[in-house]
Amino acid sequence: MIKIMIVGFGNVGQGFFELLNARRDELGIDAVVTEIVDRRRGFIRNPGPEILPDARAGRQLGVKVDPEDIPRLITESDANVVCEFTDLNIRDKGEPAFTYITTAMRSGKHVITTNKGPVAFHYDELMELSRRYNVGFGFKGTVMAGTPSFNVLELLPGAHVEYFQGILNGTTNFILTKMHEGLSFNDALRLAQEMGYAEADPSLDIDGVDPALKAIIISRVLGWRHSLDSMEVVGIRNIEMAGNGVVKLIAYADEKRAFVKPMVLDPADPMAHVNGNLNAIKFKLDTLGSLIIIGPGAGRVETAQAVLTDLMSIVRRYGLR
Amino acid sequence: MIKIMIVGFGNVGQGFFELLNARRDELGIDAVVTEIVDRRRGFIRNPGPEILPDARAGRQLGVKVDPEDIPRLITESDANVVCEFTDLNIRDKGEPAFTYITTAMRSGKHVITTNKGPVAFHYDELMELSRRYNVGFGFKGTVMAGTPSFNVLELLPGAHVEYFQGILNGTTNFILTKMHEGLSFNDALRLAQEMGYAEADPSLDIDGVDPALKAIIISRVLGWRHSLDSMEVVGIRNIEMAGNGVVKLIAYADEKRAFVKPMVLDPADPMAHVNGNLNAIKFKLDTLGSLIIIGPGAGRVETAQAVLTDLMSIVRRYGLR
Repeated sequence: MIKIMIVGFGNVGQGFFELLNARRDELGIDAVVTEIVDRRRGFIRNPGPEILPDARAGRQLGVKVDPEDIPRLITESDANVVCEFTDLNIRDKGEPAFTYITTAMRSGKHVITTNKGPVAFHYDELMELSRRYNVGFGFKGTVMAGTPSFNVLELLPGAHVEYFQGILNGTTNFILTKMHEGLSFNDALRLAQEMGYAEADPSLDIDGVDPALKAIIISRVLGWRHSLDSMEVVGIRNIEMAGNGVVKLIAYADEKRAFVKPMVLDPADPMAHVNGNLNAIKFKLDTLGSLIIIGPGAGRVETAQAVLTDLMSIVRRYGLR
Repeated sequence: MIKIMIVGFGNVGQGFFELLNARRDELGIDAVVTEIVDRRRGFIRNPGPEILPDARAGRQLGVKVDPEDIPRLITESDANVVCEFTDLNIRDKGEPAFTYITTAMRSGKHVITTNKGPVAFHYDELMELSRRYNVGFGFKGTVMAGTPSFNVLELLPGAHVEYFQGILNGTTNFILTKMHEGLSFNDALRLAQEMGYAEADPSLDIDGVDPALKAIIISRVLGWRHSLDSMEVVGIRNIEMAGNGVVKLIAYADEKRAFVKPMVLDPADPMAHVNGNLNAIKFKLDTLGSLIIIGPGAGRVETAQAVLTDLMSIVRRYGLR
């Protein structure tokens, strides 16, 4: 049996719990969530689907957990896969998620995360630990939810990426789309907040930090060494629409440089027509020329798909059963 | 050593031979083309890169081959992978390629093909033989060259496809793009022929048979049973442009029905901006909503990428070395 411990049971964790339960049989895997640890919802063993309404409402469901205790609970768990779904923390460079992940790996557990922080700030250490302890490390959900992004390169062996260019943040793309339709920045932001696309503090999106972290993660997968410090990152806070051009917040990287900034796209470019909170990525490849992928970049089931993709990849690669 | 026999050494075969030689070391595979069989170019053993200029010019390079002998050569070969790159034959429902492929499978060889005929007309038999003889069967190159199409579903375990909709033929898309720019059908077709996108007899493209075969192949991968006989297939021969709408030749299928016909797309749809000889496919998925992939659908290195993708997939799955 594949025993899964979920750390962080917000929208993503709940979505994955639901999707795994719904698709387990057709995927032919004997995978069960045996433990859930969440700061608000507590420590829950052998959860059934009946917990979902209370979990969604944010109620305490199990024994109250002291956050300091979470690494010990991870070490002592007999799960073989830990799914780390806590929130992004920029100031502490991905902590405490980084500690949760490394603790899991050091105790021989495979890890899946949807948290950009640990991956963007500690890529090399995590890869090294994954090798040393022979455990899988999946992080598809950090970029474009379940929509194929960097993992599409698994389907393109031998292809070389010259550069990539993406619309990697749905919130700013929604705001820019509404501004293109005539709304002011403030009205568009308010609408995004009303629709649940933007946080109460939307600065990570608006100022371009979220897409920058995603560009760093894709770059690291490609073997390129970019970091927040080495990148030019310009958001959309003071942007004004002029003329008929379509403005998109573009994250770009090649081997030498990386940036995030608003750019005017050629209306003949399909990327100019990626609207609302959709995401897109264009890879420039030596074998295929331009390959564009357009799809959702966030959402409950959309991100759960990414976790299921990572889980199946670990199941196959490490022969879990 | 992975020994590869190439059957049919036109543009695709030459492109794959070049790409394999260039990328073999970085892919870490000991794969060598040991035999080439081609009706015009003859039977060549242990070919080196020096054959390429003559091969491109269509000259005879090895012992002349009687086409009747090709199945025997396949059976007697000690290659473990046969790459079948002969031309599509609709009238004979994929023959002689179907015979080449089944002969290879029956002698225990893995098979990769870029030929739509055998796959679209004989899918069940080929799957059954692949299981019975425990050999791999790759056919990524039959749909959108190396651009991820049906194989993107490998990255989306558990996702269900409600329908797909594609621009699966580059020739007709090029003609429609030029007509949208003001050319007549005849002038656009002539331009496509001058640029090498359309055959001297372009009827398989113009009349929609080529994209119909591709829609059948994708459908079969999804478990849907469509065939040329059960599909409505309308091409672009008598099309006229009216108004400002963007017309694309769309191949569509869900579980119940499939068709190919020209359709007016909403200009807000990124698919409306897939121009020239590019291809695109949109999958409607329960977990991700709409996923769109845009990329090349033909070409020498673009199709070679598909073959390399299939080869690496077989290498991994069957542990070839």
